[in-house]
Amino acid sequence: MASADDHPDLVVVAAPPDVVADVVVRQLAEHPDAVVTDVASVKSVVLQAITEAGADLGRYVGSHPMAGRERSGAVAARADLFEGRAYVVVPSKDSTRSAVELVRRLAVDIGCQVTTMSAREHDDAVAAVSHVPQVMASLTAGRLRSLSEHSVALSGQGIRDVTRIAASDPQLWTQILAGNAGAVRSVLREVYDELGETLAALEALGDDDLIRSEAAPGARKVLASLIADGNAGQARIPGKHGSAPTPYATVVVVVPDEPGALGRLFQHMGEAGINLEDLHLEHALGHPVGLAEISVLPAAAEPLREQLTTRGWRVH
Amino acid sequence: MASADDHPDLVVVAAPPDVVADVVVRQLAEHPDAVVTDVASVKSVVLQAITEAGADLGRYVGSHPMAGRERSGAVAARADLFEGRAYVVVPSKDSTRSAVELVRRLAVDIGCQVTTMSAREHDDAVAAVSHVPQVMASLTAGRLRSLSEHSVALSGQGIRDVTRIAASDPQLWTQILAGNAGAVRSVLREVYDELGETLAALEALGDDDLIRSEAAPGARKVLASLIADGNAGQARIPGKHGSAPTPYATVVVVVPDEPGALGRLFQHMGEAGINLEDLHLEHALGHPVGLAEISVLPAAAEPLREQLTTRGWRVH
Repeated sequence: MASADDHPDLVVVAAPPDVVADVVVRQLAEHPDAVVTDVASVKSVVLQAITEAGADLGRYVGSHPMAGRERSGAVAARADLFEGRAYVVVPSKDSTRSAVELVRRLAVDIGCQVTTMSAREHDDAVAAVSHVPQVMASLTAGRLRSLSEHSVALSGQGIRDVTRIAASDPQLWTQILAGNAGAVRSVLREVYDELGETLAALEALGDDDLIRSEAAPGARKVLASLIADGNAGQARIPGKHGSAPTPYATVVVVVPDEPGALGRLFQHMGEAGINLEDLHLEHALGHPVGLAEISVLPAAAEPLREQLTTRGWRVH
Repeated sequence: MASADDHPDLVVVAAPPDVVADVVVRQLAEHPDAVVTDVASVKSVVLQAITEAGADLGRYVGSHPMAGRERSGAVAARADLFEGRAYVVVPSKDSTRSAVELVRRLAVDIGCQVTTMSAREHDDAVAAVSHVPQVMASLTAGRLRSLSEHSVALSGQGIRDVTRIAASDPQLWTQILAGNAGAVRSVLREVYDELGETLAALEALGDDDLIRSEAAPGARKVLASLIADGNAGQARIPGKHGSAPTPYATVVVVVPDEPGALGRLFQHMGEAGINLEDLHLEHALGHPVGLAEISVLPAAAEPLREQLTTRGWRVH
């Protein structure tokens, strides 16, 4: 943090949501010529507190680099944490144009893609794309606590993906959720209502252990809509480059779990001289084999398949 | 499907939950010497229907290879779909020992890890590890439908993971959820109750856009417990080999998005001669760079880092 002896142009405040406004107010006072920005992941509540403190809003610009991780602390730190991430610049209505420009330049300098939003717009967006997903992952993972060893062993890739971010830090996330309580609540209220309808549908289908596909058509319609609406929402998530998802072809290779297998596969993939777009490793449960799902442009799928088969890989 | 002219030892019925019991009953009647198994992902409801039809339960053994995908159809088919997956064998209390043994042998022959459970035990387990995660992913993804383009563009790796399985087929999933209505409902009821408490906590924190870390301590405790319980549940998911997660070290490499970059990285990783345990590619949003997170045994991290740095990679 800059001290009173420094004369910085820009002060960047990185502090947890609960205390960030106080620090911003202090820095604005201590450095009357500096622009001050904060990087907390909630914005309205911070702006409100700074406004109420009577600070000089012209020199304050909020910001939020979308570069969090489910791990925190020095070990998880990365010099490249910001590269290619979205950086939301959140001017107040009083921020001067030069203050906004200074923060925007910082974001560009560290390799981010800049987007500008109001505090409210930012908070509504992150409620849906970050805060509610965190709550949903935690709720899902919480159910695993009471399962038998035998049952939890059936966990596949689906639940692994759904619950990965459930490993996040409770203290930090309490502050984030509390700091965006209004926006999170309004999205979660929708979830709650739809979950209530889902429960009612499951109730209507009965627990008499009889499948009656002709029975309770209304209830079945509720379940089908739930999944179909999820399809529609999921399809809106932008692809690798922030644009619509590119339809890659996938080549699936069996990877025996023996020393060097993955390295050998990578070497052969490299030697194939084909531009690889993505790779996803799927682990097999309790058995020494895994699958590598390689994404390439559709035209490259057949050549890659041939090259790997020639080198002795089982390709599907 | 086996016809009346065949004399199979074993008939495997692969049909959607809604119709599978009828097909099993017919196959038991048509092949009076054969063992019949089905591979539907719900079991109690099928067993109940077969029992009520008065079929010969001695020759029926349920089963469930845990090898579904979020994609279906011939294009998504894989010859190796079953390799290394859990295969749950679900005998009824009337199944003969030899019938159970025959199904178990099939599972072993196609490379699965066999586990035996009652129909109820199976259905309770998959409700928690598969069916409820599907509902949660769909509920989360559904919220994205109403977001602006601008807002959905902030989607990061977290929501991508949480909603990946939201791309699943509505018709099939309606049948699965309806076929396991009782067990799914009881887990979802817990989620509903905890979500209700979460909403009440967010309400208590107010939407007055003021952070008051000292205010509403009870509400903050509810949020902290939600995340902490998720931590505990997530930690129970078995690692790669069905045992406790192995603590690998990760080496993170910056991958420029230029033709051949990923292939070159793989080639160099292969040449490094180090046994790689896992690889996760993280895509950067709207910017031509990505990160490769390579997992290796702790002792191998430093050598891999050195080798890749020597070959010109930016490693962190």
